[in-house]
Amino acid sequence: MEKPLILITNDDSLKAPGIRALIETIRPLGRIVTVAPDRPQSGTAHAVTISHMLRLDLVSKSTDYEEYCCNGTPADCVKLAFKIVLNRRPDFIFSGINHGTNTSINIIYSGTMAAVLEGALAGIPSVGFSLNNYSLNADFNPSKKFVRNIAEKVIANGLPQGVCLNVNIPDVPGNLIKGIKVCRQSEGTWKEDFDEREDPNGRKYYWMKGVFVNIGDGQDTDQWALDNNYVSVVPVQFDLTATQAIDPLKSWF
Amino acid sequence: MEKPLILITNDDSLKAPGIRALIETIRPLGRIVTVAPDRPQSGTAHAVTISHMLRLDLVSKSTDYEEYCCNGTPADCVKLAFKIVLNRRPDFIFSGINHGTNTSINIIYSGTMAAVLEGALAGIPSVGFSLNNYSLNADFNPSKKFVRNIAEKVIANGLPQGVCLNVNIPDVPGNLIKGIKVCRQSEGTWKEDFDEREDPNGRKYYWMKGVFVNIGDGQDTDQWALDNNYVSVVPVQFDLTATQAIDPLKSWF
Repeated sequence: MEKPLILITNDDSLKAPGIRALIETIRPLGRIVTVAPDRPQSGTAHAVTISHMLRLDLVSKSTDYEEYCCNGTPADCVKLAFKIVLNRRPDFIFSGINHGTNTSINIIYSGTMAAVLEGALAGIPSVGFSLNNYSLNADFNPSKKFVRNIAEKVIANGLPQGVCLNVNIPDVPGNLIKGIKVCRQSEGTWKEDFDEREDPNGRKYYWMKGVFVNIGDGQDTDQWALDNNYVSVVPVQFDLTATQAIDPLKSWF
Repeated sequence: MEKPLILITNDDSLKAPGIRALIETIRPLGRIVTVAPDRPQSGTAHAVTISHMLRLDLVSKSTDYEEYCCNGTPADCVKLAFKIVLNRRPDFIFSGINHGTNTSINIIYSGTMAAVLEGALAGIPSVGFSLNNYSLNADFNPSKKFVRNIAEKVIANGLPQGVCLNVNIPDVPGNLIKGIKVCRQSEGTWKEDFDEREDPNGRKYYWMKGVFVNIGDGQDTDQWALDNNYVSVVPVQFDLTATQAIDPLKSWF
């Protein structure tokens, strides 16, 4: 059987240790093409670049592996991969391993998961992986076993049409990880805060520094799983319709 | 009764005719504070600015109206409004009127709707308005009656917790608009395409220019409503869990 064509990307850039760990783990499973941003793009969410031009550069190429960097966002990388690099849609997309979690509502700010949603929109089974450690020195070794397990399952079984996976991995030694738990997205919010400073000319500027507050308390949520040393797997879709609100709203008009 | 505090924002910048039409329409309904980007931010989705500093400048101030511009994204504008401009959460958020539609899956690329989702995450009834015309010379006059109607309904009734509204308005003369239809998000996808060019040094670069393809065919979808000269109203929430996929996936692990 022909090896599947697998696209790898992330939002922390090609230089991040997390994408290196992902490439190393996934490489035995198919023909791998990596297209990733040339600089960190955390917090870019599902942004696409329409007001400036995109660059795409070959970084390395061998018989079973190609690597490109792009000056755009993760969503740009996926679209460029489809149309310019591969000239087809890949069989699978894996994104990450992100330096930091994307549990709960953080998925909507996440470039890692935007690439994965791009895959789902195109009908491609896609998975985003995140480690609960923001440091560049994070240890990705305990993650690899779980990344490989989940990737193999997705390659073997596919995913339901329009569904992708958001995987978050606890940052503890491997022997303390209790297993994999399929979850729903926890409720949460950000408590906004800004660091207000003055430039040398006396003009104010701000650095964003909010704090995430988990509100969901169910043991079936991704945040609970992660906090309790489980790898959380949330099946994700892109229909944002609040179906339960349709009928009540109809009475308004 | 005290007038409600209403935050207005958009993603086309403070200079766009669409936000001027929105401010004019909403102004009689409350105390209005506008915080909007200083330059167009279309396609920025739910991006937040964490890797560079934010500026916030007062543009104008009178007894019942204040206007600020910010060098960040729509989501940044909302967060800065809460914490720095208002020092509280506003009672309502209205975003737009966007130059161009945000029907179907385009909500995930939309800065207009990111601001609205920020509102929903903070528990604030919030609505995004978009006109089906990308031109800076679009005629927003026929929209105003519908914007005002929907805004008044939201101010009078609120919205269910965690639900916001995505409103799309057809670009036809007012007498051809058939009414308001509560809908679900249509299925759709983007057919990627890039314009490949060479710079004067012979190096390639790309401009993104995809084409949106509507896949949903139900008369209960927003795209159908818009195509048939109805104002579409989709209730939107931010839980992306594909609930129906949870049980099947549990058998994997």
